[in-house]
Amino acid sequence: MTRYLEDFRAGDTYVSPRVTVSAEDIVRFAREFDPQPFHLDPSAAATSFFGTLVASGWHTAALTMRLLVTCGADPAWGYIGASIEEMRWPRPVMPGDALYVRFEVLDVTASRSKPDRGFVRGRVETLRSEDEPVQQLVVNMLVPVRPAARTDSRPDAP
Amino acid sequence: MTRYLEDFRAGDTYVSPRVTVSAEDIVRFAREFDPQPFHLDPSAAATSFFGTLVASGWHTAALTMRLLVTCGADPAWGYIGASIEEMRWPRPVMPGDALYVRFEVLDVTASRSKPDRGFVRGRVETLRSEDEPVQQLVVNMLVPVRPAARTDSRPDAP
Repeated sequence: MTRYLEDFRAGDTYVSPRVTVSAEDIVRFAREFDPQPFHLDPSAAATSFFGTLVASGWHTAALTMRLLVTCGADPAWGYIGASIEEMRWPRPVMPGDALYVRFEVLDVTASRSKPDRGFVRGRVETLRSEDEPVQQLVVNMLVPVRPAARTDSRPDAP
Repeated sequence: MTRYLEDFRAGDTYVSPRVTVSAEDIVRFAREFDPQPFHLDPSAAATSFFGTLVASGWHTAALTMRLLVTCGADPAWGYIGASIEEMRWPRPVMPGDALYVRFEVLDVTASRSKPDRGFVRGRVETLRSEDEPVQQLVVNMLVPVRPAARTDSRPDAP
């Protein structure tokens, strides 16, 4: 179901399926984007701050996006994040963790300058087993109003 | 040069080398982490909100991390982000963009609870040609104090 601004309500919650992260995934991401010892090599990680191999926080963020697009919220223009208000990694992701995402709508506001769109502000929480959060953020997502409610049905230039 | 908390000062600025992003890079990242039409396929992107193929914001974030580790700030425990205060993507990254990162220290504070560490709060700006920002964030980074200033030289448990 494609959703427009009018279809979102504070309190609506969407939950994604799970994805399991392997040590190989963690190392592959780190080689390309975050080549630090605690993301690359279990031996080097053992003497690091973390004491064990952990995923890059940006790997967790990328996996969160992957899970978010499957959570069923389905905003009409796609998941377009205008900004993130705050983002934390309360604990690191480790090999074997099965992650899923919970997206909760906090509030819905119309754009003041562009009548064809508005913002869905929501909390995106990424959790592993035992429902332990590994990442928490608040996103402002750009969502169009329903075409019938507008004078034209094509998006304005961004 | 490995830096400890005492080595960072508000106003210190580090600048990374550049990396050029290709359409192939954009699509490959999107297939794995952000499979939406405007990140996957130039034709589908043409009729999307963006009107053209653009990189996932999380791809920009991952590339920013890749560039940050080469900027020369070299904190002693590695680049360990405790949290992000705010994050924006003022314009999307497109194929051919050459990105670089500017890291500016905003303030430095000792931890209240753990004497072996503190926080370097900094602005991380990702820019493309003409110095146009494509991503802006403020990070709180965990940095150890110099071992000579501590009673032991190994990190406490996180």
